[in-house]
Amino acid sequence: MTHPLRLDPDRYFPSDATQRQIAGELFAHVETLPIVSPHGHTDPAWFAKNAPFEDAVSLLLWPDHYLLRMLMSVGVTLESIGIAPNDDAEYEKDRRVVWRRFAEHYRVFRATPSRLWLDHTFATVFGLDVRLEAATADLYYDTIKAKLAEPEFRPRALYERFNIEVIATTDTAIDPLHDHRAIRESGWGGRVIPTFRPDEVLDPDHADFFSSLEQLAILTGENVETWPGYLAALANRRAYFREHGATATDHGHATARTCCLGLGEAKQLYDRILLNRKNEGDGELFRAHMLIEMAKMSCDDGMVMQLHAGPWRNHNLQLYRRFGWHKGGDVPTATDYVHGLKPLLDKYGNDPKLTLILFTLDETAYSRELAPLAGIYPAVKLGPPWWFHDSPDGMLRFRRATTDTAGFYNTAGFNDDTRAFFSIPARHDLARRMDCVYLAELVATHRLEMEEAAELARDLAYNLAKRTYRL
Amino acid sequence: MTHPLRLDPDRYFPSDATQRQIAGELFAHVETLPIVSPHGHTDPAWFAKNAPFEDAVSLLLWPDHYLLRMLMSVGVTLESIGIAPNDDAEYEKDRRVVWRRFAEHYRVFRATPSRLWLDHTFATVFGLDVRLEAATADLYYDTIKAKLAEPEFRPRALYERFNIEVIATTDTAIDPLHDHRAIRESGWGGRVIPTFRPDEVLDPDHADFFSSLEQLAILTGENVETWPGYLAALANRRAYFREHGATATDHGHATARTCCLGLGEAKQLYDRILLNRKNEGDGELFRAHMLIEMAKMSCDDGMVMQLHAGPWRNHNLQLYRRFGWHKGGDVPTATDYVHGLKPLLDKYGNDPKLTLILFTLDETAYSRELAPLAGIYPAVKLGPPWWFHDSPDGMLRFRRATTDTAGFYNTAGFNDDTRAFFSIPARHDLARRMDCVYLAELVATHRLEMEEAAELARDLAYNLAKRTYRL
Amino acid sequence: MTHPLRLDPDRYFPSDATQRQIAGELFAHVETLPIVSPHGHTDPAWFAKNAPFEDAVSLLLWPDHYLLRMLMSVGVTLESIGIAPNDDAEYEKDRRVVWRRFAEHYRVFRATPSRLWLDHTFATVFGLDVRLEAATADLYYDTIKAKLAEPEFRPRALYERFNIEVIATTDTAIDPLHDHRAIRESGWGGRVIPTFRPDEVLDPDHADFFSSLEQLAILTGENVETWPGYLAALANRRAYFREHGATATDHGHATARTCCLGLGEAKQLYDRILLNRKNEGDGELFRAHMLIEMAKMSCDDGMVMQLHAGPWRNHNLQLYRRFGWHKGGDVPTATDYVHGLKPLLDKYGNDPKLTLILFTLDETAYSRELAPLAGIYPAVKLGPPWWFHDSPDGMLRFRRATTDTAGFYNTAGFNDDTRAFFSIPARHDLARRMDCVYLAELVATHRLEMEEAAELARDLAYNLAKRTYRL
Repeated sequence: MTHPLRLDPDRYFPSDATQRQIAGELFAHVETLPIVSPHGHTDPAWFAKNAPFEDAVSLLLWPDHYLLRMLMSVGVTLESIGIAPNDDAEYEKDRRVVWRRFAEHYRVFRATPSRLWLDHTFATVFGLDVRLEAATADLYYDTIKAKLAEPEFRPRALYERFNIEVIATTDTAIDPLHDHRAIRESGWGGRVIPTFRPDEVLDPDHADFFSSLEQLAILTGENVETWPGYLAALANRRAYFREHGATATDHGHATARTCCLGLGEAKQLYDRILLNRKNEGDGELFRAHMLIEMAKMSCDDGMVMQLHAGPWRNHNLQLYRRFGWHKGGDVPTATDYVHGLKPLLDKYGNDPKLTLILFTLDETAYSRELAPLAGIYPAVKLGPPWWFHDSPDGMLRFRRATTDTAGFYNTAGFNDDTRAFFSIPARHDLARRMDCVYLAELVATHRLEMEEAAELARDLAYNLAKRTYRL
Repeated sequence: MTHPLRLDPDRYFPSDATQRQIAGELFAHVETLPIVSPHGHTDPAWFAKNAPFEDAVSLLLWPDHYLLRMLMSVGVTLESIGIAPNDDAEYEKDRRVVWRRFAEHYRVFRATPSRLWLDHTFATVFGLDVRLEAATADLYYDTIKAKLAEPEFRPRALYERFNIEVIATTDTAIDPLHDHRAIRESGWGGRVIPTFRPDEVLDPDHADFFSSLEQLAILTGENVETWPGYLAALANRRAYFREHGATATDHGHATARTCCLGLGEAKQLYDRILLNRKNEGDGELFRAHMLIEMAKMSCDDGMVMQLHAGPWRNHNLQLYRRFGWHKGGDVPTATDYVHGLKPLLDKYGNDPKLTLILFTLDETAYSRELAPLAGIYPAVKLGPPWWFHDSPDGMLRFRRATTDTAGFYNTAGFNDDTRAFFSIPARHDLARRMDCVYLAELVATHRLEMEEAAELARDLAYNLAKRTYRL
Repeated sequence: MTHPLRLDPDRYFPSDATQRQIAGELFAHVETLPIVSPHGHTDPAWFAKNAPFEDAVSLLLWPDHYLLRMLMSVGVTLESIGIAPNDDAEYEKDRRVVWRRFAEHYRVFRATPSRLWLDHTFATVFGLDVRLEAATADLYYDTIKAKLAEPEFRPRALYERFNIEVIATTDTAIDPLHDHRAIRESGWGGRVIPTFRPDEVLDPDHADFFSSLEQLAILTGENVETWPGYLAALANRRAYFREHGATATDHGHATARTCCLGLGEAKQLYDRILLNRKNEGDGELFRAHMLIEMAKMSCDDGMVMQLHAGPWRNHNLQLYRRFGWHKGGDVPTATDYVHGLKPLLDKYGNDPKLTLILFTLDETAYSRELAPLAGIYPAVKLGPPWWFHDSPDGMLRFRRATTDTAGFYNTAGFNDDTRAFFSIPARHDLARRMDCVYLAELVATHRLEMEEAAELARDLAYNLAKRTYRL
């Protein structure tokens, strides 16, 4: 026995008739707007090479750490779904068997955003009309395999079908951006731009720090063994990224700490790091100082600065040791923005040249720290609910907690932040609907007029992302 | 003038017609399911002796620290409601007068869960149909007194009338479990099982630590003056509890800190404690290490491990000094699970033999820490909203904050956690209704199909508790 | 083109028909109750002199830091809206131009409480019926200017028109209270009472500490160079405030820390401060100790004690340097009440003579700390949602997070906490409506009876504020 898969046209809207009606009217204004995706993790090689995707397992399951983590948490081992460990333990090699295992456990995703995104993808991209479960696993596997072989399912065709206006990838500071160059030179009309993410070269505790520095020297011709040379190399790479279309940088830090060292102190700290004579705390100090250097460079070159603070990467140690990064083993930590960002904001918080977009995994910061900071510092804007909070309830909590103090116009619009290319329409559909739900609540309770809500719906779905990211 | 007391059949359901209809349909699937009560504080002597309860005051008021704390907070002294202080201050001895005083202040419980539980108890257990207030105080007192004298109000009869399938008590590690033995040997069909709660023998700062250790030695024949003997004694008691039906342990700690000491360090720490030569922090260190020893033993013997972290016991110092424990003087503290549990999870978080159920009084941890931990570590499951959060809104906040990341199948089902035996049906009724309310919200907004919600309603009301606690 | 401005009679009520109906019925009980305003920042000189207000800019824009901060955050400089910086930078001097600039940016306040308060003020106080925007800026400016010249718009006339029964101002400990005296002696029937706010004389880190001490000595004739003289001077001023009608004190502290020093320690600390030989931490220690001295004096003289803890004043350093205090540059910090208040509560938490009203900018404390403290200590009551949380959603979150544990009768009623005199009716209207919304939710879900809700609505709107503040 199977179950139908259908996307209700009123999905996510409240059941209250008044609000549902208003939400639907508002959504009609934004449903077909082009997708602006200013922050995410798609692979530029897809668009450069335009090769077909392989199958459901390698496309939809393996790269999606939301799926891996939930499956693990209910006792499904990664080996059993085909992920090879670093040791020589057995793992499942038959992808059809892997997909069946996933299908059998699909119920554990009930009411999670993963389920909503996947169902939307299955229905709208692949035309499936029955739910994924044990009984339909093979149908899914075969259908998806067949579709992926069609030309309409190549990356560029999907980019167009998804109505994407611009999409940003995320790239290390030492990425040569060959794929971005190839896309540009191909004559194809899609706009795929890089984002400058220099974590490896800013974080002396990163395993790849020294090798990345070497690469940085090679790519820029700067002498990174001196502090001025290091800064010049970074500025050089930022310029290179801008030449390739980048408008933004992105910084993934465990904390929001910033610190403004004097020139002498900064030099000495850099020397200690290069000589492998770090004192305790030097790593954190360097990262803290470098955020301010990055803000300074953003004032100079106009790149929008994003800060994703708070995750404890690879908290699940055994998982990390056996399977490496990006398997879902990260967890959030409490994050202090009010103290952490003070040194940066003292210098650049009021500078009209800086745009600093903040993200958090700690929802308690929404009303206590982030909305108040965005509501007073011209530089600060709030990124959309991130990661664990990118869900219907998470989005409503974000709006309800930030709008009183920061309003709508200090928020940065939506970004999908995903490597799951096929789910991008689902994610924007969900975000647009939830913003309409929030707006409908305001209109229905006479806190906002309908004509204002309609303008806001378009701003939140499209205009704010373009404007904030200077696209 | 009196006011009617009636339990609306749609109580707690949303007034929105669509959601109310769905919630009602879902609730019909679970309303009459047996009660599984895997964690609570009922007295096994009730079921062993099956003696009648006394009166409303000693049954419903005095043991309920929710009631005592609220009355105190609005200026009703404990003496005035018949609780004897340690000093020789006067206190009210006439129970009818005490009950009248409670009735006069019943309004201060408006919209609290205490009010919901009590009204349900009054109406369904005692058949009262007017509200408790000054004018009905005597009617209540007399009615309850008369009913309690009837055989149908004896503990075993109520166990059956309440449709309880299994109920767990909470017992210190040195409890001889005589009552549990007596229940088993009596031939009565009720299933009343102990839970191993070793706080007194794991916490060197506890006033009863040394006397409990002595008792531990006597009960087990182990030499608890050595570290291996101490561990063996604990393992011995765990086995004893399992023989008497226990499937779980429970740990009440002020923090969630865990720490993995080497054998030598642990021995030395234990020696310092025994010799009364504790350094500062040794108490916390020992508790932190012992949580890991308990996890290890759980992997060995299969007992489910519960951790109730966060309360500051007896924060109200004057109350504690004059009236002792369990008068409502505890308050929550912010609790850090992500750092605190890391050492334990490093060792056993991925071990399929361990089930670790986490509880919190710090709601900010739901979405930031607990759901992410449960959503990646196979061992971790989330206990239901605890104590101050065991309320309609508290339950909704829990589901809304955890489901996105942990789903439903990393939650442990409901437990009533109460010593108020008469309120157990009320508490399960409330919990089942609120889960149906949440599920109805998901169905009404097309995030879940009705047939899935019906299965989930049964899982949340019954199956998950049995499965998670290995009952 | 302009847009109509209308206040819907059902504004803020849920669109669900059942709840809207109930909320409306409840609101009818409280809509016309007199306003009790036990904490706020209006200027007593208004009522003493009864002079006309000037114009829209100086009355409604410049004193309102909610407006200034939001405008700044979206890039409108304070100079451009007529605020003079400390340096010699240019600033706009034409008030009509300033008002136009504000009107052009009015959209950034969409869905903020500022917008709700202003629209209510525009419509009900000034009779405006079109929305503020570029096209109506001049109409607004001229209308308001003309109205303010009429006798009905003088402070005393508005006090009466607003149906204010009593209003408390906030005054430094060294304020001679001339205006309050003049009001009393004028024979006018309005009740404008002072509140004793001694921050400057309790905070050794305050820029005005020493000059305030000198003034304190002059006003009281006490020798403030000795610890007993200092305490006597404070008691003297408290008595002076009480003679002028004060019933409460107010304390604005960065943290909730309290500390109980012995007499010798306190003396020595005070001496170090007077001699400018403070050790690190002495400022915080002194403030912490003085809160306990204030609680002691409250037990003696019956003044209700308010604690507003948590803001980081002037976080936006550049703003502070150029424009000074009260421009909106404060942000909240995480605040620990459970540890911080313990010493004070150990001494006076159970004292029936003390009423301590707590306010927070850290919502996470509602259910974790504040409701549990209010739910066990007779002295502790919860102030209404403060500052960034004084909004429809903020109010609902407050009730939903505190009622389970603290009930309604440990809350202190509403206070508007504003210097925006014209918005006082708007603020009470909003608060009364939102309490009715919460009560309607409880009634509609059968957690409360209608007749109880009606009583509660009146208590929350009127009785609790009078009772708690001993008015």
